[in-house]
Amino acid sequence: MLLRRLSTKFAVLGRPFCSNTRNDIATTIAELNKEMEVVFGEPPSNGFGASEANGVGTQETQSMSQGSEERAGSLTHVGNTGDAQMVDVSPKVITNRTATASCKVMLGKTVFNLVSANQMAKGDVLSVAKIAGISGAKHTSSLIPLCHNIPLTHVRVDLKLNPDDFSVEIEGEAACSERTGVEMEAMTAVTIAGLTVYDMCKAGSKDIQISNVRLEHKTGGKSGDWFRGK
Amino acid sequence: MLLRRLSTKFAVLGRPFCSNTRNDIATTIAELNKEMEVVFGEPPSNGFGASEANGVGTQETQSMSQGSEERAGSLTHVGNTGDAQMVDVSPKVITNRTATASCKVMLGKTVFNLVSANQMAKGDVLSVAKIAGISGAKHTSSLIPLCHNIPLTHVRVDLKLNPDDFSVEIEGEAACSERTGVEMEAMTAVTIAGLTVYDMCKAGSKDIQISNVRLEHKTGGKSGDWFRGK
Amino acid sequence: MLLRRLSTKFAVLGRPFCSNTRNDIATTIAELNKEMEVVFGEPPSNGFGASEANGVGTQETQSMSQGSEERAGSLTHVGNTGDAQMVDVSPKVITNRTATASCKVMLGKTVFNLVSANQMAKGDVLSVAKIAGISGAKHTSSLIPLCHNIPLTHVRVDLKLNPDDFSVEIEGEAACSERTGVEMEAMTAVTIAGLTVYDMCKAGSKDIQISNVRLEHKTGGKSGDWFRGK
Amino acid sequence: MLLRRLSTKFAVLGRPFCSNTRNDIATTIAELNKEMEVVFGEPPSNGFGASEANGVGTQETQSMSQGSEERAGSLTHVGNTGDAQMVDVSPKVITNRTATASCKVMLGKTVFNLVSANQMAKGDVLSVAKIAGISGAKHTSSLIPLCHNIPLTHVRVDLKLNPDDFSVEIEGEAACSERTGVEMEAMTAVTIAGLTVYDMCKAGSKDIQISNVRLEHKTGGKSGDWFRGK
Amino acid sequence: MLLRRLSTKFAVLGRPFCSNTRNDIATTIAELNKEMEVVFGEPPSNGFGASEANGVGTQETQSMSQGSEERAGSLTHVGNTGDAQMVDVSPKVITNRTATASCKVMLGKTVFNLVSANQMAKGDVLSVAKIAGISGAKHTSSLIPLCHNIPLTHVRVDLKLNPDDFSVEIEGEAACSERTGVEMEAMTAVTIAGLTVYDMCKAGSKDIQISNVRLEHKTGGKSGDWFRGK
Amino acid sequence: MLLRRLSTKFAVLGRPFCSNTRNDIATTIAELNKEMEVVFGEPPSNGFGASEANGVGTQETQSMSQGSEERAGSLTHVGNTGDAQMVDVSPKVITNRTATASCKVMLGKTVFNLVSANQMAKGDVLSVAKIAGISGAKHTSSLIPLCHNIPLTHVRVDLKLNPDDFSVEIEGEAACSERTGVEMEAMTAVTIAGLTVYDMCKAGSKDIQISNVRLEHKTGGKSGDWFRGK
Repeated sequence: MLLRRLSTKFAVLGRPFCSNTRNDIATTIAELNKEMEVVFGEPPSNGFGASEANGVGTQETQSMSQGSEERAGSLTHVGNTGDAQMVDVSPKVITNRTATASCKVMLGKTVFNLVSANQMAKGDVLSVAKIAGISGAKHTSSLIPLCHNIPLTHVRVDLKLNPDDFSVEIEGEAACSERTGVEMEAMTAVTIAGLTVYDMCKAGSKDIQISNVRLEHKTGGKSGDWFRGK
Repeated sequence: MLLRRLSTKFAVLGRPFCSNTRNDIATTIAELNKEMEVVFGEPPSNGFGASEANGVGTQETQSMSQGSEERAGSLTHVGNTGDAQMVDVSPKVITNRTATASCKVMLGKTVFNLVSANQMAKGDVLSVAKIAGISGAKHTSSLIPLCHNIPLTHVRVDLKLNPDDFSVEIEGEAACSERTGVEMEAMTAVTIAGLTVYDMCKAGSKDIQISNVRLEHKTGGKSGDWFRGK
Repeated sequence: MLLRRLSTKFAVLGRPFCSNTRNDIATTIAELNKEMEVVFGEPPSNGFGASEANGVGTQETQSMSQGSEERAGSLTHVGNTGDAQMVDVSPKVITNRTATASCKVMLGKTVFNLVSANQMAKGDVLSVAKIAGISGAKHTSSLIPLCHNIPLTHVRVDLKLNPDDFSVEIEGEAACSERTGVEMEAMTAVTIAGLTVYDMCKAGSKDIQISNVRLEHKTGGKSGDWFRGK
Repeated sequence: MLLRRLSTKFAVLGRPFCSNTRNDIATTIAELNKEMEVVFGEPPSNGFGASEANGVGTQETQSMSQGSEERAGSLTHVGNTGDAQMVDVSPKVITNRTATASCKVMLGKTVFNLVSANQMAKGDVLSVAKIAGISGAKHTSSLIPLCHNIPLTHVRVDLKLNPDDFSVEIEGEAACSERTGVEMEAMTAVTIAGLTVYDMCKAGSKDIQISNVRLEHKTGGKSGDWFRGK
Repeated sequence: MLLRRLSTKFAVLGRPFCSNTRNDIATTIAELNKEMEVVFGEPPSNGFGASEANGVGTQETQSMSQGSEERAGSLTHVGNTGDAQMVDVSPKVITNRTATASCKVMLGKTVFNLVSANQMAKGDVLSVAKIAGISGAKHTSSLIPLCHNIPLTHVRVDLKLNPDDFSVEIEGEAACSERTGVEMEAMTAVTIAGLTVYDMCKAGSKDIQISNVRLEHKTGGKSGDWFRGK
Repeated sequence: MLLRRLSTKFAVLGRPFCSNTRNDIATTIAELNKEMEVVFGEPPSNGFGASEANGVGTQETQSMSQGSEERAGSLTHVGNTGDAQMVDVSPKVITNRTATASCKVMLGKTVFNLVSANQMAKGDVLSVAKIAGISGAKHTSSLIPLCHNIPLTHVRVDLKLNPDDFSVEIEGEAACSERTGVEMEAMTAVTIAGLTVYDMCKAGSKDIQISNVRLEHKTGGKSGDWFRGK
């Protein structure tokens, strides 16, 4: 729906759809539709090209997409007029939901060894980062503008040293029994934990990087369970 | 200093220094010292091996390192007893300081094109993420336990689409005129902006990753200016 | 009930009821009762005058008024002893609730035109204010001392330029499925959005005003649905 | 500068400048320039029409406007590319600054009398609102996205009942010794105080409105002192 | 379980269990077990000494302790590996829960009389502290790292002057209908109220102390109702 | 000054000064004056009884007390009209300031031994409480309504087990270079650390109490340095 609206608008403007990808609008539509098929296993029922040719079914699709946070091929946080929006989860059902995310903090060998040595002590880097990650998850809705504020039933953050690539591997999990998922809480937990590792180690090296912040696993909600493949 | 303290402690315990790096304590010390030389261009004046052989100058070094946030080769957020600590910046001088950080959000082609199309509209993904990043920088000290709360004179967050790898490139800058630097504020700004991009795009793909969160540049403070080399 | 309590107290003190309205106590009571009838369509069952004459039923009324947030003619946030209090919503039932509020930011012609021009760009004034309003709604219970902290299922903030009076018209809506309403969340959303418009425009004029912050509509809860009449 | 940039952009798009004000672009420019003269007492040195005819001096003006938060006739929170931005106050000097704002909460007669009666008691509506306003001022930078976080040296909020129009009149003042002003802190203080009055009275009437939220007075900063005229 | 894990670890290290209590490990175990019996009325089924002799039943006990927040004789916020953890309350049932806590602020006679005199005025010390306590309860999960963020259905804080020992007695109550209790919310409410009394009185004396912060009463949850005995 | 104002007011009301201390107004005044002498070493220059007899010097005293946060014998957070107020520190000078506070958490023997055993592990109770205390200090101005928000140059929280009375002894220190002191930051740090110990141990006993929350030491500011006597 978004794309159709935009195409109409852009037609009025008489200029190429998305100049910075250097495609004309038709090519972009074709490509998007093809990729949606590849990724999501079915042609978008009311995609951009289709709706251009034929407006039938628009209302049906709109009502279908009500509250459908997980629908592939659209940006659920962008409303009918192209504005940012919070998803209205009022019509959704309450289910138990969990999400697990992970990231790596690449320390380099020198800092890795310092952290590794410190790990034996009380209040070490990894322990402080764990607490920061758990606390951070509870601040998710204050940080992410369109994220719902929900009570969490659990937050877990684990950090371990990986001597093979001198990294700290962080895994975070959040759980709730609500109308919306907790992916952002898990993602925020690992990110804040990673930033805390960075903060405590930054005097040792400026080459530390946080990488691979990503979702690993989710359960619950209409879209069901999902695990990252190997 | 940390390492010496720990070695003494571990000696009492009669067990290997840091078993998970699979080195005995002497090897670790030697390696650390060598790497500190490589990375920091001078042998640590009172490193672990040295202080083992000879305790002279310890007190002097300790007083030197008071408030020395930028000293390489130690974890400034870990105190004399191995505990986590906030660095005491009371004795530091006020200077203008800036820091710039960056990260990438790897969207994949499908989501990249959706965001790219949306970019033309009001309240698009990148604009919301920019606002979230600026706001996030102001929450840094609430999120990172050992980080000082300071007034910022500026926060800037810029996002651009990179069609070559279907990513959003985020750059963030913070500035203050205080006794401590703003690296964490710049790092937090880009991270929260990246998480907001993730939030608004996550319905389109679960393969989105935030990567390469790192410092790019800093000015001010005792350690002076620094730019990431190519 | 409140009034009776106070009158007793004031009688003891032997001084006029409420000197700054320049009425003696009897007149005030009479007036209040009359107005309550006009406004709420029924004489207050246990109002001030009545209970003066006759103490019967006090206890019953008190238990009735437990948790009765919407009861007209009393200040629910003021307890039996005249103290401020949070309403105890424990005995209330969970229902879906929404509230819509609105306000206007009177910009004046000059600033209106600047904002209007900017509206075409990315990250314009109205878009930033929208994000601030949505985020602000999630902070309502931190800002309003006696307001409950509740998970919101939706927050919507829309801003539009009204060229007739050079204003920005803001409408905000909040929704939840809880034991208490979301009027304050809707009111806070439009107010913070209005303050953000003010902030971004204040360099252009010091005559900008925020006005008519008010409730427009509410659904759910014991008192049922309500719409502002024309 | 903003306007020139936009005009160039819009020219490319080949459509009218600002359709919702129903003026063509030239008329808008002329009007804006005329009004800026009326309001600010001097023609904009490098306004939209001027820069159209002649690009000279652009760079000079840009460097002039660096950090110029109070410059009339532009939106300081909108950057060169039309994006929202925080003003960089790093180059500004520290001065003592104050700002006073005010608003009215129109209660209607019934609620006014209830509040008036309660005013004699401990923890009354006005006292709670005062505390909320003071606390609210300290949260300004968390609420208003592009507002700087600064230490305040004082916040004052006073509320009084005005029996003439059954309103609560609220005045708030903030002070700091920083590089940026405290208008937003004063505005936020009175607004949050007003919302708290609303919250505590809303059970008595749904017709309560907050109005005339506006700046009354400011001192300090480059633009100097300002008082609202009668 | 914790104790068994630790004992194994410590055995490897070949050093005394807990040197600062100056007991050898066996004595500590024996004492702990004895006290658990006294306090909790039954020998710990899989305590430290027992598990030393025999590892049977470990898995069973572990699964039993899942989500068992109220289990006596263990630190529920410490995980299997000795790490801090948030208790996972996902499997718990929703019940109405309340908790009441109390504390005393010992003012000394001079300050007591000043507060006592002020109590008659608007916005007095006790009223401000009450509002701070109610607001503070809503921030509990931001302050206490392993505490769940939950919607509260009620918070009550009452303060009274006790002329016998020149103290302010504070009682706070919190209520929710959730999967976890509200002890920490009640404890935080009275503590923040106490700190606010301290803040407003500290200019009068530096001998003010807050004491006896403790739980008085709780209802709901698996462990049922509890009242502090006389 | 406060007392004189109140006495005037109460005289008008024609009722006893402060009934709950069961003294008539004259006795209270006399007592207060006497105690002020004992405690502060000099008769209050413009105390209640004195000013009753003679109004001379009032204005002088009022101007003297401007910004005098540390002046004994008055409640600086209560304004001329009896209202709560934030102290205006604008006219104060910036000095380095520190404050140290302490408290005890009485665990009882059973819980003490559990915590003591856990202390050897990573992320133990005391380490989490330390982090919570440091973070809590940074939230002081959000929690204590009339407290100024200031940048802190240092926060330190230390916890140690005292086996003599089975307690955790907590000491916290805050430092700043500002116009106002950091007593409340130190007090808040130890209190939040104490509440965190309570949270992590509460499953083991309901008899845990936090006590003796008090100031130990302060430096800087007009009133100079102060140490608690033995």
